[in-house]
Amino acid sequence: MAGPILDFWFEFASTYSYPAAMRAGPLAQDAGVHLRWRPFLLGPIFQAQGWTTSPFNLYPAKGRNMWRDLQRICGDLGIPFERPHPFPQSTLRAARVALVALTQPWGEDFCRAIYRAEFGEARNLEDTQTIAGVLEDLGQNARAILERAQSTENKEQLRANTAEAQRLEIFGSPSFVTEDGELFWGNDRLEAALKWATR
Amino acid sequence: MAGPILDFWFEFASTYSYPAAMRAGPLAQDAGVHLRWRPFLLGPIFQAQGWTTSPFNLYPAKGRNMWRDLQRICGDLGIPFERPHPFPQSTLRAARVALVALTQPWGEDFCRAIYRAEFGEARNLEDTQTIAGVLEDLGQNARAILERAQSTENKEQLRANTAEAQRLEIFGSPSFVTEDGELFWGNDRLEAALKWATR
Repeated sequence: MAGPILDFWFEFASTYSYPAAMRAGPLAQDAGVHLRWRPFLLGPIFQAQGWTTSPFNLYPAKGRNMWRDLQRICGDLGIPFERPHPFPQSTLRAARVALVALTQPWGEDFCRAIYRAEFGEARNLEDTQTIAGVLEDLGQNARAILERAQSTENKEQLRANTAEAQRLEIFGSPSFVTEDGELFWGNDRLEAALKWATR
Repeated sequence: MAGPILDFWFEFASTYSYPAAMRAGPLAQDAGVHLRWRPFLLGPIFQAQGWTTSPFNLYPAKGRNMWRDLQRICGDLGIPFERPHPFPQSTLRAARVALVALTQPWGEDFCRAIYRAEFGEARNLEDTQTIAGVLEDLGQNARAILERAQSTENKEQLRANTAEAQRLEIFGSPSFVTEDGELFWGNDRLEAALKWATR
């Protein structure tokens, strides 16, 4: 695909990555930017800075405002919002499946559907049935894909993605990285990242 | 003044409060919103969640990206940026003077000039001469105002502001609070706060 590339680094457990995932595709298309969806895990990165859970759980006032803010943002975008329990969720399996999915034409739809299930319908990603249901809704063979996701090669690919995110000094999700290495963090920086990518 | 009121809670040590302070006045005026400038201290609030310095110092990758992000934002706004040393600065005296200044017609100009001195010119607010210089540039009697700022009544007013910020569950700067109690945090939420205030 011609045009500049923007890497979209995302972790399914991340709250603000939900509106970002819903917005990013159409905005990138309008800007003529090829958005490369790159799942990774925030857990090892948070652990490296001494966090054992989401900062929104560690800092309650900040967490309460984040949920309210996310609700407002989803309302403005006209996308459903329902606060998930538990939070954060283990997204290891969903991220592995996303890696497989993103080699297919329906991969981005899968990622959006996972975010919608989690933050729009409060479904639990730790339940394999949630992921299987999303795959089936997309007309895919859930059993075969879940099996491929558990392959050693695929597991290693996710570890490699997470290691690359750390190398890029990514510290949160969503993050956007341009071809010349500019790092933009947060749903609110999507427009600035697209602008940088096309300047 | 007619029209809705939006409280603009700010701490001079806060990086993103610099572009917010530069943007807020004109945007509020355009929206027909009366912006009420309310200085407070983040120190006691950060300490209550176990932080002894800025989170940008506690989390180095996040901190490096914040400085770069702030530089990009200031570039887009066409306002000067120079990274201050030390960071964060003790802003106790500047906040006390701001309380006095904001009873005067030149109060908001004083606040903007303090932010510009700190983040646009890397001047040190811990040096009383910096604050005196800003006051003099505004044609004011620096000695008299610095003295008023140190009055018991004024010191208590700043403590009361900080206590009210805590009561409102403010956890960062800038924060915007509408008359019906909606809390918006961050320079990037200024537009949303103004929209909420006028809906």
